[in-house]
Amino acid sequence: MSRFEVNILGCGAATPTMRHLPTAQVVNVRDKLFMVDCGEGAQVAFRRAHLNYNRLGHIFLSHLHGDHCFGLFGLLSTMALTGHTGELVIHAHPDAEVLLRPMFDYFCRENPFDIRFNALSPSSSEVVYSDRSVSVRTIPLKHRIPTCGFLFEEAVGDRHLRGDMVEFYNIPTYMRAAIKQGADFATPDGKVVPNSQLTLPPTPPARYAYCSDTMYSEGIIPYIEGVDLLYHEATYADDAEAMARTTYHSTARQAARIAAKAHVGRLLLGHFSARYNDEKILLQQALEEFAHTELAHENMNVVLRR
Amino acid sequence: MSRFEVNILGCGAATPTMRHLPTAQVVNVRDKLFMVDCGEGAQVAFRRAHLNYNRLGHIFLSHLHGDHCFGLFGLLSTMALTGHTGELVIHAHPDAEVLLRPMFDYFCRENPFDIRFNALSPSSSEVVYSDRSVSVRTIPLKHRIPTCGFLFEEAVGDRHLRGDMVEFYNIPTYMRAAIKQGADFATPDGKVVPNSQLTLPPTPPARYAYCSDTMYSEGIIPYIEGVDLLYHEATYADDAEAMARTTYHSTARQAARIAAKAHVGRLLLGHFSARYNDEKILLQQALEEFAHTELAHENMNVVLRR
Repeated sequence: MSRFEVNILGCGAATPTMRHLPTAQVVNVRDKLFMVDCGEGAQVAFRRAHLNYNRLGHIFLSHLHGDHCFGLFGLLSTMALTGHTGELVIHAHPDAEVLLRPMFDYFCRENPFDIRFNALSPSSSEVVYSDRSVSVRTIPLKHRIPTCGFLFEEAVGDRHLRGDMVEFYNIPTYMRAAIKQGADFATPDGKVVPNSQLTLPPTPPARYAYCSDTMYSEGIIPYIEGVDLLYHEATYADDAEAMARTTYHSTARQAARIAAKAHVGRLLLGHFSARYNDEKILLQQALEEFAHTELAHENMNVVLRR
Repeated sequence: MSRFEVNILGCGAATPTMRHLPTAQVVNVRDKLFMVDCGEGAQVAFRRAHLNYNRLGHIFLSHLHGDHCFGLFGLLSTMALTGHTGELVIHAHPDAEVLLRPMFDYFCRENPFDIRFNALSPSSSEVVYSDRSVSVRTIPLKHRIPTCGFLFEEAVGDRHLRGDMVEFYNIPTYMRAAIKQGADFATPDGKVVPNSQLTLPPTPPARYAYCSDTMYSEGIIPYIEGVDLLYHEATYADDAEAMARTTYHSTARQAARIAAKAHVGRLLLGHFSARYNDEKILLQQALEEFAHTELAHENMNVVLRR
């Protein structure tokens, strides 16, 4: 097991302000980088966070509102200019390819890497990416246009060898990897020791759920139940609950209620409306519903596993 | 005569850095705002400069490289969200409408203002805008793709009434406006005093020339001869003169040579390559060719007339 972190590049809502960039973040799983949404200014924030373009292979777009994707053009141009190679996959609503492909073809003409689009169906939940370390599943959200969140889940690691058993049975080094993966052990005199006696269960996989943009929706709870970290949009405070409903956004309190009902480990609030000069009011209202709540901020690094 | 200012929103080159945004500026003529180029992040810089969207009616794009136009999407979305009305004209190469219209149609669906494209022919010089206060003329530049600069020229104001003549002939107030505009004056006893005796010439119109991106090109001198302020790209220092030639950019020294040959009032250097952590070297080399040289910087406000 190793590194699993979330880097917040932007956590403002539709209108960027002097305090917040529009939405963008990078999930780092064992030094592979996965970008989630890419609002204007993401490339500069990416650089400020000391992230490396060479480790970025996948970008996931929750929906096609400009504040979640207008940073793509600059980001991809810079990757082209700096000689990025290989393939970059953009996981997004099918409209993305129709709209964005002509732009990339025109503006990144001498692009040295391939851009591939993977069409998402935001209304159903599906695994859209997986490798040995992590899988990414979509979470259907309720917004004005087709929108999905993303659940990042570490792959289950090996079982843990019990030191006392290794010693007791004098298990040779070359056999240990197989046992960690579930094999039984046969002693020199033919006795079979079952794996369950030799090992402890693997470390539970860390899970991160990104849910933005969405109105209050208990339908997401089964997908995010018990995650270590939930990023949930919290565009408004209580005073604008009606506005939240009309615009298909959430209040901070609603985000916290979802976190409580889903028994998540920690809640990170983001997607703050430009109307709040200080998000303290959002935090206060959320804390009344769920204790383990924090405000996101630009250049924040949240560690799920070191 | 009144206000004529240039606000620098971004003066970096293709790759934005922590120090510079890509190219964008706003020319303010009598409180009408004209944007010249619109790199990523322009909308936040616009706000930081305390400029008002309601006064912005025209955007001029020098060429269709991403670092000069990727800020348009965010800027126009924000103008739509904040309820901007009326018309916004984008003066640009004909490809701009083909490329950008589908984006605006998709992302600014509920746009309350009209976006009109005015197609430029960057290879010839033509007046692309004029009103009572100002005219804008294109300046053909030499870059890798069709590119033009822009010359902003104040309209010629009224002639100045000579106070001594007003007194001597006792010119009534109601006749003075006509005389300022060139009329002669007939005394009560029928004598005609020619206008040239009553007035002094109008204040020479202030002129601002924007030339970016371009390689060294003496062909632009006739267009910029004697302007009050020249903004000329200065992507590189002497050490990268070969690179400047290959990429169709200029060195700071070349920009200053053009300024000297064109007898401009002041030179403002911009479009700095990300390779320079400090542009002092660019300024030093330019000052060897032309004394009235300054470095542009973000949030700079240059006053041509108050």
